Amino acid sequence: MKHKIYFKLKNKGVEEEAFQAIVEEQDSIGYYGLPEQDISPILTYASSIDEAIEDIAVIGIGGSSLGAKAIYEFIKPSQKLSRRLHFFESTDPLNIQTLLSEIDLKKTHFLVISKSGTTIETFAIYKYLYHLHPHIDSYTFITDANSPLEAYAKEMQANYLLMPPRVGGRFSVLSNVGLLPLALCGIDIASLLQGAKGIKDAFFQGEALQHTILKKAVFYTRHQCKYRVNGIFAYSETLKYFCEWYVQLWGESLGKRQRHSAFNVGLTPIGLIGPKDQHSFLQLIMDGTRNKTLTFIKVEAFPSELTIPHVKLPHLESLDVLNDLPFSTLINMQCDSIIEALLDEDIPLDTITLPQIDEASIGALIYYYELLTSLVGELMDVNTYDQPGVEAGKIILKEKLKKLKEQ
Amino acid sequence: MKHKIYFKLKNKGVEEEAFQAIVEEQDSIGYYGLPEQDISPILTYASSIDEAIEDIAVIGIGGSSLGAKAIYEFIKPSQKLSRRLHFFESTDPLNIQTLLSEIDLKKTHFLVISKSGTTIETFAIYKYLYHLHPHIDSYTFITDANSPLEAYAKEMQANYLLMPPRVGGRFSVLSNVGLLPLALCGIDIASLLQGAKGIKDAFFQGEALQHTILKKAVFYTRHQCKYRVNGIFAYSETLKYFCEWYVQLWGESLGKRQRHSAFNVGLTPIGLIGPKDQHSFLQLIMDGTRNKTLTFIKVEAFPSELTIPHVKLPHLESLDVLNDLPFSTLINMQCDSIIEALLDEDIPLDTITLPQIDEASIGALIYYYELLTSLVGELMDVNTYDQPGVEAGKIILKEKLKKLKEQ
Repeated sequence: MKHKIYFKLKNKGVEEEAFQAIVEEQDSIGYYGLPEQDISPILTYASSIDEAIEDIAVIGIGGSSLGAKAIYEFIKPSQKLSRRLHFFESTDPLNIQTLLSEIDLKKTHFLVISKSGTTIETFAIYKYLYHLHPHIDSYTFITDANSPLEAYAKEMQANYLLMPPRVGGRFSVLSNVGLLPLALCGIDIASLLQGAKGIKDAFFQGEALQHTILKKAVFYTRHQCKYRVNGIFAYSETLKYFCEWYVQLWGESLGKRQRHSAFNVGLTPIGLIGPKDQHSFLQLIMDGTRNKTLTFIKVEAFPSELTIPHVKLPHLESLDVLNDLPFSTLINMQCDSIIEALLDEDIPLDTITLPQIDEASIGALIYYYELLTSLVGELMDVNTYDQPGVEAGKIILKEKLKKLKEQ
Repeated sequence: MKHKIYFKLKNKGVEEEAFQAIVEEQDSIGYYGLPEQDISPILTYASSIDEAIEDIAVIGIGGSSLGAKAIYEFIKPSQKLSRRLHFFESTDPLNIQTLLSEIDLKKTHFLVISKSGTTIETFAIYKYLYHLHPHIDSYTFITDANSPLEAYAKEMQANYLLMPPRVGGRFSVLSNVGLLPLALCGIDIASLLQGAKGIKDAFFQGEALQHTILKKAVFYTRHQCKYRVNGIFAYSETLKYFCEWYVQLWGESLGKRQRHSAFNVGLTPIGLIGPKDQHSFLQLIMDGTRNKTLTFIKVEAFPSELTIPHVKLPHLESLDVLNDLPFSTLINMQCDSIIEALLDEDIPLDTITLPQIDEASIGALIYYYELLTSLVGELMDVNTYDQPGVEAGKIILKEKLKKLKEQ
């Protein structure tokens, strides 16, 4: 993974402090150690699932689904996977019906994932599915140790896995939460972790990447009142769900009251896909309020030889320049052209180039973003790992549900 | 469609001026008249397509695809449509390959849609598909009068339709650009326009809606430096692509240099889907920088009886409150709970309630957002209907392509 930044800023002292804080945080925050975990229990468990199972369905929401979905959708178009993966992540009844129409219950294994063990959406869906298909062996539960869901699984003598300690939901993709569903589809989770490990080592061992990522984190923090929106502009449709994962990671980690002040801070994440969003959001970036930074993500070598054929169309001769051009060359030239246009306008941007579409690339990208998030959180003086703001809505819902029952 | 706003602001004079400007704009801007158009030519043309055709594929990008996609994906989960609709809207080679694997070329009719008639992406894909399947009768072209694409279609004796005059790409969904692909799938385009017409009449004839929409537009404009981000929070998965359509409409229409100043303005659109994004973006709204407004979109009556069964799970008794609850009730209670929580935090919001999932509802919603965009554009003193900022990137790409050919 290559990374190039175009920010002008020198903050040696601040950078060193932030780096030191992250080094120390490794003792208390669990996600840092995930690249080195022993994955043999996950692989052993995955191989114990009946080969007749054709579909894997994750019942989970937020951090319990976004990570696996990002990786699955990145890999799927270019690899023949052994099973399909589905995500039940909404209480929208039409969505549940559509998902059910795509699977055969008898050939599906369900992964019920809830860190707290009491997630409303997850259990609403689980109750429905379990009623429809009451075979406990068709379900595997993933939850925190000592949660009510662990107790349930034990009582039902069901299969379950415990999440590693001190790993937050949105940082859990490289734990069994993400790795089990991916392994069940034949995705190479060892390579995924290797990619993450490469970034981890480069960062902690002081290679060039350490400097660029620190510089970028300091820039975002220092200019947070000017550049309030941080967009990813990814030039591949395969990164669409990676963007959704990023939106949760960035928005939920950094949108907080500061630890030592009453000030509410936060940076707004946006996910864009090129070239499509050149015909949508780009105008706002070029000519709108100058409050956005952009990170372009490119794929260096697409696993596709697809080429625009030598076709001449009368009256459309201006488009002959496209003839004989591989689509992969075209999409990357489109990306480069937008980067040049934005640099001309002095819009802060950086580029990340993935060598190819494979497990190591997406593992690296994920760990890079997790590190960046931790750094910015530290620099912004927020608790990167909690989400107190979502509690109020949950309490109101519980009261509403209780009232409804009492009627 | 019900609409309720929670803004406190009185600006009678400003509101009247903006309304008057929109009344006058109807002479020069084409989209206002679309609800009253004669759709018989579209219906006649649609019925001329061979019944053996099972799939319709739109080759188009931005305004040429986002509108039809929004409506198709809204309707599809609850209606049995006569044909499937596909969208070739990226130069990503993997995406093109995936889409091709989903259709049988012999049973597909292609709609090549390009307002200018020279869109790079559209012709890169068209050249590829035409080379693969060189049967001109399998294609219908939609473009502006006198474009190079019209000349091409004439020369090839191909079928083509002209876009109505003075209708911008992102305002074209209710013209043949959106109506033809939708009609070909059996979607009731007459009801779609009727829904739009209802909003148009309510607005121009001074009913209650006129006041709420004007008040909202003035609020957004007056507070643009405080509330820079305008999110839609839609509580149905069916509205996911409506959000993408909204992002283009809002971002590309309002992100501009002001007409009478050198100041760059703009409002950042965000599309959120509930309850999923309660587990992602909500934290940032609740506890992050207070620079966002929200519009909640609810569906009053989901066309689904799906109900959480009466299932008791040991150790998970706290979730018994969910038993016997229809999913449609749950999702709307979730929405109401978040609204209450946000109102407690004094976050500016409004709610739109669609009576059901049908053509009239989405037609109304689309026309509502078009009107709101026109109003805010007028109030912000920008040209709502152009997109000068996207040209720079196109010019750089053309130069790069030319240089590549010369090598």
